[in-house]
Amino acid sequence: VLVVGAGLIGTSIALALRRRGHQLWLTDINAAQLEQAVRLGAGERYNGEQVDLAVVAVPPASTAPVVVDQLCSGTGSTVTDTASIKGELQREVERLLAAHEDSSAAPLALSRYVGGHPLAGRERGGPHRARADMFAGRAWVLTPGPGSSPAAVEDTRWLVTECGAIPLTLSAAEHDHALAITSHLPQMVASALAAQLSSQPDGVLQLVGQALRDMTRIAAADPQLWAEIATGNAAQIAAAIDELTASLHDVATALRSESPDVDAVSALIQAGRQGFRRLPGKHGGAPRSYLVVPVIVPDQPGQMARLLADAAAAGVNVEDLRVEHAPGLPVGLIELFVGPEAAAPLRTALTERGWTLTDEETPP
Amino acid sequence: VLVVGAGLIGTSIALALRRRGHQLWLTDINAAQLEQAVRLGAGERYNGEQVDLAVVAVPPASTAPVVVDQLCSGTGSTVTDTASIKGELQREVERLLAAHEDSSAAPLALSRYVGGHPLAGRERGGPHRARADMFAGRAWVLTPGPGSSPAAVEDTRWLVTECGAIPLTLSAAEHDHALAITSHLPQMVASALAAQLSSQPDGVLQLVGQALRDMTRIAAADPQLWAEIATGNAAQIAAAIDELTASLHDVATALRSESPDVDAVSALIQAGRQGFRRLPGKHGGAPRSYLVVPVIVPDQPGQMARLLADAAAAGVNVEDLRVEHAPGLPVGLIELFVGPEAAAPLRTALTERGWTLTDEETPP
Repeated sequence: VLVVGAGLIGTSIALALRRRGHQLWLTDINAAQLEQAVRLGAGERYNGEQVDLAVVAVPPASTAPVVVDQLCSGTGSTVTDTASIKGELQREVERLLAAHEDSSAAPLALSRYVGGHPLAGRERGGPHRARADMFAGRAWVLTPGPGSSPAAVEDTRWLVTECGAIPLTLSAAEHDHALAITSHLPQMVASALAAQLSSQPDGVLQLVGQALRDMTRIAAADPQLWAEIATGNAAQIAAAIDELTASLHDVATALRSESPDVDAVSALIQAGRQGFRRLPGKHGGAPRSYLVVPVIVPDQPGQMARLLADAAAAGVNVEDLRVEHAPGLPVGLIELFVGPEAAAPLRTALTERGWTLTDEETPP
Repeated sequence: VLVVGAGLIGTSIALALRRRGHQLWLTDINAAQLEQAVRLGAGERYNGEQVDLAVVAVPPASTAPVVVDQLCSGTGSTVTDTASIKGELQREVERLLAAHEDSSAAPLALSRYVGGHPLAGRERGGPHRARADMFAGRAWVLTPGPGSSPAAVEDTRWLVTECGAIPLTLSAAEHDHALAITSHLPQMVASALAAQLSSQPDGVLQLVGQALRDMTRIAAADPQLWAEIATGNAAQIAAAIDELTASLHDVATALRSESPDVDAVSALIQAGRQGFRRLPGKHGGAPRSYLVVPVIVPDQPGQMARLLADAAAAGVNVEDLRVEHAPGLPVGLIELFVGPEAAAPLRTALTERGWTLTDEETPP
């Protein structure tokens, strides 16, 4: 396997495959980055050897030309990539191949290409942040084009499963639409919500609770990165924003009249409940109903550990946990999420061990 | 102190004050609820005794008439309430007092009223869910009107601090505006984002990640409750929605053109970063920079406890914790949030104890 681009994603793929015993070749236009990846044991410097699969893991804007380079390199290998935008990339690859001097070979070359997007990553890049398990259990979308050969699709699926990821096959348009809804729109909304805080008086900021915090968690994003993502998926992002703002605008209009029509609000909340129920649960299964057991905890080192040790000693599997800091006071509330059957035993065990509990609740 | 309305909030206030040794009287139109609160030790049945302070903790729609009843009851006590909407309530109290047969006494009666809103509560109500520490460390907004006497304001501040809460004085309009931004708008947006999922193909749902999950956490809200909240703050909610949709609409417009203008996207992300930085940090202080140490954990009972015990044994104060479930695989990632100085010792300690760590990161 050849990995082109020894950054975070490329080096992580190489490390994952190396751990499975495969032969890896690496190349990068950045010599220092390549050197670092080689030293990390991700593979050997590429010197034109024959390969079965080439993985292009370079920035989105450079992906199409590098994919085409690989398709025309004469190795005959399958080629895939890792860019987060797929439709525009597929079209660019087709355009570049058609314009190539050897254009009669374009359909054959194109048959060896299968677009890919591992849904994993980290905030900061570089081979030194790579890890072999970066893709473990993560979705990895494959977007074969109409001309992709079954053998090329098979090679790419092999890559995904060897990296420990879960292959999901979608069309490029489906992928870009899904990312617009699940990633790009939420980012725009989180940033817009956070942006509104800039002009608010301090009194407003003092009243910010967990809801708005959760909804602006990703607002510290990188403006340049998001400009690039928006370039590759502009129409889908615009459509997703339009749909959201239309439904919000309807509510605002209903509320702005002389006698506000609050049915619009209950209809929106009701529609949200329906969509919310479609969110997949833990381990990709159906949503599971948890109970929340809230525990009042002094904000001191080791309290969370002691609490969880007591829960474990009672044989309770804590499925999730949320820490709520009380503003201005050195106490906090820890909410333990457990299966419904575990709430009562957990309650008894923690009370016996001296913890201050409040009634369990269904999660919000 | 008289508490009118022995539901979740009223009973919690009574329990908090009882714990501080005060004499409490309770009343409720629901005899069973009153009985339960008395049995919980929240106070005694009210029989018209003289009181210094009356706290009206009834549903928003009934608050104004009950406040006016108390102001006209002849006890001369200070009267406050706990409703989550303040401007419309203040106006309603003034209207009802002016229409009262004894209208010449209205200014004097009004001087004894101070609106309040404890920023605490639970998803489900009832006195049996009450707890004395419900307000510990929470903000409690006071909205004295222009006619409120200094003595009445002083009495109400006393109530807040005796309950362990932090008094914040705002005008009713400021309060309603702040809640529109920090609570009502986020709810509308979360519901609208979740509602969009209803019509999406399954492929989209499979790609939902933590960002959209966090942003729709509150989407399982109660439609009826939100219709009532919207009634009391319609104009402010509409204005907040308008501001948000205008900024999103600008971005969609820039992206929809022939040659998309992605500068609009970077400008939005940049504005979001500025607002994000204004969010108060833990304990109400300035935002603190944490490092995130991600640990790969088998999804088995007791792993979280063992991990935190190991962190505690290393003397590290884990400030916060986030659990990321890997879809489809029985492994998870636990992100430990620690002060920057604690990341390296934590790393060493956990590695020595056999945990699989990846590089620490700055939180998103």
